[in-house]
Amino acid sequence: MSELRWHPFHQDWVITATHRQDRTFFPPDDYCPLCPTKAGGFPTEAPRESYDVAAFENKFPSLKTPPTDPAVEGGALLLVRPSVGVCEVVCYTSDHDATIADLPVRQIKKLVRVWRDRYIDLKSRPGVEYVFIFENKGREIGVTLTHPHGQIYAYPYVPQMIQTRHQAELTHLGMHGRTLAADWLRDETEDGRRIVFDYKNWTAVVPFFARYPFEVHLVPKADTPDLESMNDEMLDGLAEGLKELATRYDKLFGFPLPYVMSIFQYSAVHTRLIVEFTPPYRTKDKLKYLAGSEAGCGAFINDTLPEETAAQLRAL
Amino acid sequence: MSELRWHPFHQDWVITATHRQDRTFFPPDDYCPLCPTKAGGFPTEAPRESYDVAAFENKFPSLKTPPTDPAVEGGALLLVRPSVGVCEVVCYTSDHDATIADLPVRQIKKLVRVWRDRYIDLKSRPGVEYVFIFENKGREIGVTLTHPHGQIYAYPYVPQMIQTRHQAELTHLGMHGRTLAADWLRDETEDGRRIVFDYKNWTAVVPFFARYPFEVHLVPKADTPDLESMNDEMLDGLAEGLKELATRYDKLFGFPLPYVMSIFQYSAVHTRLIVEFTPPYRTKDKLKYLAGSEAGCGAFINDTLPEETAAQLRAL
Repeated sequence: MSELRWHPFHQDWVITATHRQDRTFFPPDDYCPLCPTKAGGFPTEAPRESYDVAAFENKFPSLKTPPTDPAVEGGALLLVRPSVGVCEVVCYTSDHDATIADLPVRQIKKLVRVWRDRYIDLKSRPGVEYVFIFENKGREIGVTLTHPHGQIYAYPYVPQMIQTRHQAELTHLGMHGRTLAADWLRDETEDGRRIVFDYKNWTAVVPFFARYPFEVHLVPKADTPDLESMNDEMLDGLAEGLKELATRYDKLFGFPLPYVMSIFQYSAVHTRLIVEFTPPYRTKDKLKYLAGSEAGCGAFINDTLPEETAAQLRAL
Repeated sequence: MSELRWHPFHQDWVITATHRQDRTFFPPDDYCPLCPTKAGGFPTEAPRESYDVAAFENKFPSLKTPPTDPAVEGGALLLVRPSVGVCEVVCYTSDHDATIADLPVRQIKKLVRVWRDRYIDLKSRPGVEYVFIFENKGREIGVTLTHPHGQIYAYPYVPQMIQTRHQAELTHLGMHGRTLAADWLRDETEDGRRIVFDYKNWTAVVPFFARYPFEVHLVPKADTPDLESMNDEMLDGLAEGLKELATRYDKLFGFPLPYVMSIFQYSAVHTRLIVEFTPPYRTKDKLKYLAGSEAGCGAFINDTLPEETAAQLRAL
């Protein structure tokens, strides 16, 4: 059972999804449900000998169409809605042990095009209000399957945090006639201290306002609001940037760096797509926790200077 | 060095505090900086033989008065402010190994009064816009000192999340003539399924809209917006509720349950103080992580039903 419950203090929905308590939790490598099904073996989510990039519905979805019946009835203040929507898994390769840093750029180019296809399909479905492509990488951030993969959530509402973001972008456009991302990237480029690498049509930057120590944003140099609006050159540039950043991340501390990757995009002219990476490490052996100030008040404390972490990542 | 940097997409400040990278990290029990100083021993933060409840400035503060100079200059879009404010530590007892569940209620009554005193003092200081009392408990949530203690942050701005909260409370009061907390608690009490315990002038409830599996809110039964407005009876009731909840939490899985405790209060008539507990566990051996959907989009997924977790906590 699953439903959306209204959080009247945060003005946001909370998704309950009790069946997810039983989701697959670190199966042995031989029983990975995201690997291709082996001849005579147990049936995985990919019933074929191998695949390039695979996208399919999450077996333990938080959002589902048609939705299940809510577990509670709710009331005037205790609002309930069915948790309609879509949760998909995107496998980056059929190779169980690969990372983005290992993959050839041509494979990442395919992945980026699968993201684009899935984005266009999902956003056009009735009732879908926001499509969010993301990756949780590493045990430290909570993944339960190690096979290289990301996820896509098609929410039936626009989360409060996204609303704030778009309102800020809309206000900036109204005041300045330029997108917020364009003005911010211009300032970062002029300053230069927080640029990690800059190439062709994309820039990788530790933002001036980084909330996490090794946070990096991949920003297109043109006002492309979403994957749909990008041409082949932009999409290829994104693939190259992902490979370059993943390689530097894995070199940083000498182990595959865990992170959350968030693709913020919205089919609206006032925005520009940004791919944000937020790794949970603050040194090679210390994690960045979201506790009292962050989880309680939303007030982030960054123990590092963005100028210094950018220099570290640039030097690799 | 430390400063506030403006996050133009989130419309919020981010605090940088680089000196915190060197903060004390799990010292041996014999070298706890929060224990009373022993005769002939190293000097701790409490230069006396023992203490009841002790409050003092954090040695590795994120906010400080007078503030240090910012590390960067900033610009028109890359806004910078000094990170003026106060960070205090509140030790609950001089006993290094105690937990709130162990403490006698009379000790917790003292603690609550220290919170009240510190709140009144800090909120009256120039430049302080929001005072946040919280506790990070347990290694799993990131504490670096195990001595029982909480913290107080006096921010020089109102965090975006708190602004959303107060706007929602203000709107509700305008529409209904009653505080949001009053109406919500009335609905919870009438329904009853999510009440953990109810006594005298406080109620402990797993909210209908819980974001974390074992989230519990301690709510006063009267419209008391902050600790300052509470009389002795209300303060004593809070102390009793803290003891009762901590005891149930520690019984739940048979180990001291880690949590973040957040005291939301604001000296304004449209609000009611709420003490929120958000433990990071979803089962006795699995953690609740804030990853893609939560950290990226702010969209929380709760793998449990609030009605069921309330029943579990009620039965202990």
